[in-house]
Amino acid sequence: MASSFGENIKLSIFGTSHGPSIGMTLEGIPAGLPVDFDKLQAFLNRRAPGQNPWSTSRKEADVPVFESGISGGFTTGETITATIANTNVRKSDYDELKYIPRPGHADFAAWMKYGLDFDMSGGGPFSGRMTAPMCIAGGLCKQWLENKGIRIYAHIESLGTVNDEYLDPVHPQVEKIYKDFPVINPDSKAQMLSVLSYAKETMDSVGGVIACAILGLPAGVGEPMFGGVEGRIATAVYGIPAVKGVEFGDTQAMATLYGSWVNDAYTVENGAIRTATNNCGGILGGITNGMPVIFRAVVKPTPSIGKPQKSVNMKTMEEVTIQIKGRHDPCIVPRAVPVVEAAAAIAIYDLMAEYSAHK
Amino acid sequence: MASSFGENIKLSIFGTSHGPSIGMTLEGIPAGLPVDFDKLQAFLNRRAPGQNPWSTSRKEADVPVFESGISGGFTTGETITATIANTNVRKSDYDELKYIPRPGHADFAAWMKYGLDFDMSGGGPFSGRMTAPMCIAGGLCKQWLENKGIRIYAHIESLGTVNDEYLDPVHPQVEKIYKDFPVINPDSKAQMLSVLSYAKETMDSVGGVIACAILGLPAGVGEPMFGGVEGRIATAVYGIPAVKGVEFGDTQAMATLYGSWVNDAYTVENGAIRTATNNCGGILGGITNGMPVIFRAVVKPTPSIGKPQKSVNMKTMEEVTIQIKGRHDPCIVPRAVPVVEAAAAIAIYDLMAEYSAHK
Amino acid sequence: MASSFGENIKLSIFGTSHGPSIGMTLEGIPAGLPVDFDKLQAFLNRRAPGQNPWSTSRKEADVPVFESGISGGFTTGETITATIANTNVRKSDYDELKYIPRPGHADFAAWMKYGLDFDMSGGGPFSGRMTAPMCIAGGLCKQWLENKGIRIYAHIESLGTVNDEYLDPVHPQVEKIYKDFPVINPDSKAQMLSVLSYAKETMDSVGGVIACAILGLPAGVGEPMFGGVEGRIATAVYGIPAVKGVEFGDTQAMATLYGSWVNDAYTVENGAIRTATNNCGGILGGITNGMPVIFRAVVKPTPSIGKPQKSVNMKTMEEVTIQIKGRHDPCIVPRAVPVVEAAAAIAIYDLMAEYSAHK
Amino acid sequence: MASSFGENIKLSIFGTSHGPSIGMTLEGIPAGLPVDFDKLQAFLNRRAPGQNPWSTSRKEADVPVFESGISGGFTTGETITATIANTNVRKSDYDELKYIPRPGHADFAAWMKYGLDFDMSGGGPFSGRMTAPMCIAGGLCKQWLENKGIRIYAHIESLGTVNDEYLDPVHPQVEKIYKDFPVINPDSKAQMLSVLSYAKETMDSVGGVIACAILGLPAGVGEPMFGGVEGRIATAVYGIPAVKGVEFGDTQAMATLYGSWVNDAYTVENGAIRTATNNCGGILGGITNGMPVIFRAVVKPTPSIGKPQKSVNMKTMEEVTIQIKGRHDPCIVPRAVPVVEAAAAIAIYDLMAEYSAHK
Repeated sequence: MASSFGENIKLSIFGTSHGPSIGMTLEGIPAGLPVDFDKLQAFLNRRAPGQNPWSTSRKEADVPVFESGISGGFTTGETITATIANTNVRKSDYDELKYIPRPGHADFAAWMKYGLDFDMSGGGPFSGRMTAPMCIAGGLCKQWLENKGIRIYAHIESLGTVNDEYLDPVHPQVEKIYKDFPVINPDSKAQMLSVLSYAKETMDSVGGVIACAILGLPAGVGEPMFGGVEGRIATAVYGIPAVKGVEFGDTQAMATLYGSWVNDAYTVENGAIRTATNNCGGILGGITNGMPVIFRAVVKPTPSIGKPQKSVNMKTMEEVTIQIKGRHDPCIVPRAVPVVEAAAAIAIYDLMAEYSAHK
Repeated sequence: MASSFGENIKLSIFGTSHGPSIGMTLEGIPAGLPVDFDKLQAFLNRRAPGQNPWSTSRKEADVPVFESGISGGFTTGETITATIANTNVRKSDYDELKYIPRPGHADFAAWMKYGLDFDMSGGGPFSGRMTAPMCIAGGLCKQWLENKGIRIYAHIESLGTVNDEYLDPVHPQVEKIYKDFPVINPDSKAQMLSVLSYAKETMDSVGGVIACAILGLPAGVGEPMFGGVEGRIATAVYGIPAVKGVEFGDTQAMATLYGSWVNDAYTVENGAIRTATNNCGGILGGITNGMPVIFRAVVKPTPSIGKPQKSVNMKTMEEVTIQIKGRHDPCIVPRAVPVVEAAAAIAIYDLMAEYSAHK
Repeated sequence: MASSFGENIKLSIFGTSHGPSIGMTLEGIPAGLPVDFDKLQAFLNRRAPGQNPWSTSRKEADVPVFESGISGGFTTGETITATIANTNVRKSDYDELKYIPRPGHADFAAWMKYGLDFDMSGGGPFSGRMTAPMCIAGGLCKQWLENKGIRIYAHIESLGTVNDEYLDPVHPQVEKIYKDFPVINPDSKAQMLSVLSYAKETMDSVGGVIACAILGLPAGVGEPMFGGVEGRIATAVYGIPAVKGVEFGDTQAMATLYGSWVNDAYTVENGAIRTATNNCGGILGGITNGMPVIFRAVVKPTPSIGKPQKSVNMKTMEEVTIQIKGRHDPCIVPRAVPVVEAAAAIAIYDLMAEYSAHK
Repeated sequence: MASSFGENIKLSIFGTSHGPSIGMTLEGIPAGLPVDFDKLQAFLNRRAPGQNPWSTSRKEADVPVFESGISGGFTTGETITATIANTNVRKSDYDELKYIPRPGHADFAAWMKYGLDFDMSGGGPFSGRMTAPMCIAGGLCKQWLENKGIRIYAHIESLGTVNDEYLDPVHPQVEKIYKDFPVINPDSKAQMLSVLSYAKETMDSVGGVIACAILGLPAGVGEPMFGGVEGRIATAVYGIPAVKGVEFGDTQAMATLYGSWVNDAYTVENGAIRTATNNCGGILGGITNGMPVIFRAVVKPTPSIGKPQKSVNMKTMEEVTIQIKGRHDPCIVPRAVPVVEAAAAIAIYDLMAEYSAHK
């Protein structure tokens, strides 16, 4: 059943890309938490389309209206409901693709599930646009975590075959992340933009990897087995439509090297126990160990591309060649960076509620 | 709260490695499903320790006793409860490590969460031994899925730096998987065993990657966003203590190549729509498309190694050097293969219950 | 956490009585179910205020706007979201009661939970108005259950000390329920209206009991212990703000008489097994037995009354006497009848999804 | 799916009356809570059979074995698992009733759900014996609540037509409850025992009502609508097989009297706000108001009686007359008193976890 998220909070996202509105409900937030609307809007703007050369030309303001749950700048304890109007809908872009699934997109799976009349204009409920409400919830959770000293930063680790500098897992160099284009090393930007331009010019798209660091978490968060931090973060991050892989710590080393290399030795630093390295990404046995939590999300190329592709008309069963018009990002990786932060914030807020209940 | 698994079924695992018993309860299974106990035992034996040179010398029969829920070879509709006695406990192996966390193991995180008196002998509830009850539930789900034509196969894709042949994502060569040592190409076995011997001789350990194919799933299973198949399988697979990464389809290609390469084109085959390639791993928008579901789990090296390692006595805060005795696998990857199949079977059974409810 | 409802569906209700809007999200409904909007509106009108002499003079159209999940008269499989605008808000009615809890109302409990600044105008999220979105979800579930031959009828069993004819638990005389004022025996209406008039004239309010029959349920619905039909229906019905008791079958007889009287004997009728009586209300061991499910909800008097009442100013801790102005029903029992049907429909739809999954 | 209980803890009960064992798993309990085993056993003994003239002659020690989760007298933070062996099974008592449902019992409903081969000896998973594991969980939760100053007491409010003194809802006279036979007024015992003797002599059974007071709860516990305290307690109490009604506060008054009578006026007592009366049973809008929580459970007569009853052979469809042998209580009300306390303790512990998480 559940397309909602959370054990201690419950986040539900509703609406479709090309309907009247999209939105979210968030239950389980206590009364009295402050909300900084300017900060929230700034966070949403990092994801919003039409802001820069590498994103879709569709422009949406992405300004949420709060229907309930926030009053006078503070949460009220009620369910928080927010909607974003869809102001810039061009449904006709999709008419000629009726019954013809776009390769790499969810429409074939959706039609098999919901029937051929299911309206997949603009991606329907599978659209990347659904990550806007996720960012409302995530932006709020992020603020509340910051008030407890927990901070979340993501950057583009790679885009196509271009790598950014790696995050240092022990002392993540988060202050170096360049915000307009979230990379650590400013040189990476130029190279990545060149890949983006190439993809755009060739009417193609490209994928990448986003790495994320969560700082300030206490040790002891999470539960054994199915309640581990990895599974909880992975569920939230896999809620982002384009994510196909979620990994924790230095998985490349863990897959190929030896225990004596990978095990993080304990040491005493300023009177506290720390690990000298952080190959495990701050999680052991599903539970945080007080080091930065480091994870990585693999983001596939935008499925909608202008190049001709082979498909089948599901009504006539004829093989056809299609060219997708619409308006699409050649690469969603830059705009997905705040979405990954949002997903992480939601999962961590949920885990911290559990952690606090038992303290 | 939840260290249990499932939306439509509910699997809870209980016990500790060195307590009287371990076990599981599985709710939500209808009455009348047949149980083949021989087949279940054969499945459990693939995971059981002490069967071969590369596993721990601790021998446990791993024969489950069913306390409820199965009668006369059929499920009764009640909660299924099974226990496995711990017969071969050598707790003294762990005495000298009291208060000294083993690098790479869960004990530091557990002590920070539960207090320093928490008994971590043999890994406590974080032990790899907890995967035995997971295999009871998984082995049962696997049988019931097979009765519906859904089959699950995993193999060792890589162990250390040695690779097996890759699974073909369109026509997975599952019949070639050599059972005693689950690889596709028999030549891989010799090379991998040589890596295992080296790890054992050097009192070290090594990790690897397990790939899994799920065949026979209809299109339309799963829900959008947080209810997607990726997140559901990932949660189950991250329930396995040593897993640090879960990926779907060809993530390497998706991270580095172009949409025109990665998008799976549609074609008609024997009157049905199929994709010519299967880079997406059988899942689009969180929903199955009828192609094999392909995923990969990164398994870290066994944290318990005989080599000297640095740690800290949490009582005295002195830095110490430890050498772990106990009995440990130099590599758990071979024994983790059926566990990955079990986790996948549990997640898929849960998803199919949902799918059936709406048909 | 959860103020949402459901194991197989998930209903969340949001908004507040005197905010911009109220609404609901309903997850887990499959695609392709037909929606009869006229029938839904007729159902909502049974609850809507301002329709008749015995209800509040506040007039609200209660016309839902569907933001997602229904298209072209059919469900799409997505989350269904509906909102109702609050058009007739008179917040000033409540200004002088700031910090002064109204006896029998939720404001004291809410201020203790959420803080003294929590806006309880018109009842906030505890308002009877929140049952309007519950009726949207319930009205939809009721239609879908009717398509499967499951029908739900409630009547006013008693209002103050006036009783209607009792529902026959074996052959409930549901066709006799007089719709504008839901009683079985038309004579009851006059007597009950006279009690209502008295309550209104004396600026007082009065409670009552609603009895409900669910017809057409198969035997075998529900689960043992905490998953029983009684608990599931009770949770839904206790979601209605004014309900203080939920009982199944003939509880008066069960509490005071003997097993030989209360046990329902089995008999064969038209080749099927039935019970001759139905004291158990169609549920045994938490599971339906194929007879009508009969339950009863005790509804307390509207807490808002015009008579002077004693309270305390929570800021100054002075004892005060208050007179509540606002607009209130002298008795919500008549308008609560469709709400009880809605709650029952939601619970039964949820249970049937489970039942179908296992068939 | 769920026959388990809890939002923040998760209680699952397993086993059957006449199988090898029964038991429970309880997840979500933090580490470090003390367990007083003597106190727990004394609590279990209040429910155990064979202790006195009014209960079944089947004797079971009801001594739990803890498989996991408690060590050295404290919880470990792991899932708590406990089993009770079934030592006194006389399955042959039930042989002649195969395919013949006992009136008032769950067997017909169970056979319709699970099939005719489902083993209902002694009630299967619907047996009153399943309340023993519920009392393990409840007895533990009760201890932990007592450590926080929250106490739970139940008494027999009525048995057949004999009433005990009513609980004073403002100052419940709990210290007067006579433990061996839980009534407030010792005179009630003699009259109730006389009803029990009559039921036993006539091979019949009788029902009753149990009232329960929860003292020491802070104001502000619970959530609006479906998350209210009433629904949460009702779900737990309806988990007891024989309960058919759950009511809060003075439902008789609320159903028949006026708001001016029923509304509880606020007053200041020792510097704190209290209500002068407590007709609402300590809950308003689903949330506690700091007054005692008062609820009532209607318990039906034991369905198994020795008197001849009419039934039908489900294989042959012949109407038959049966006489049940077995060993049964003529009235389970006295033994159900600690079970009601257990159910309340489980629900309140679960609610308090939520309450604490948000403080």
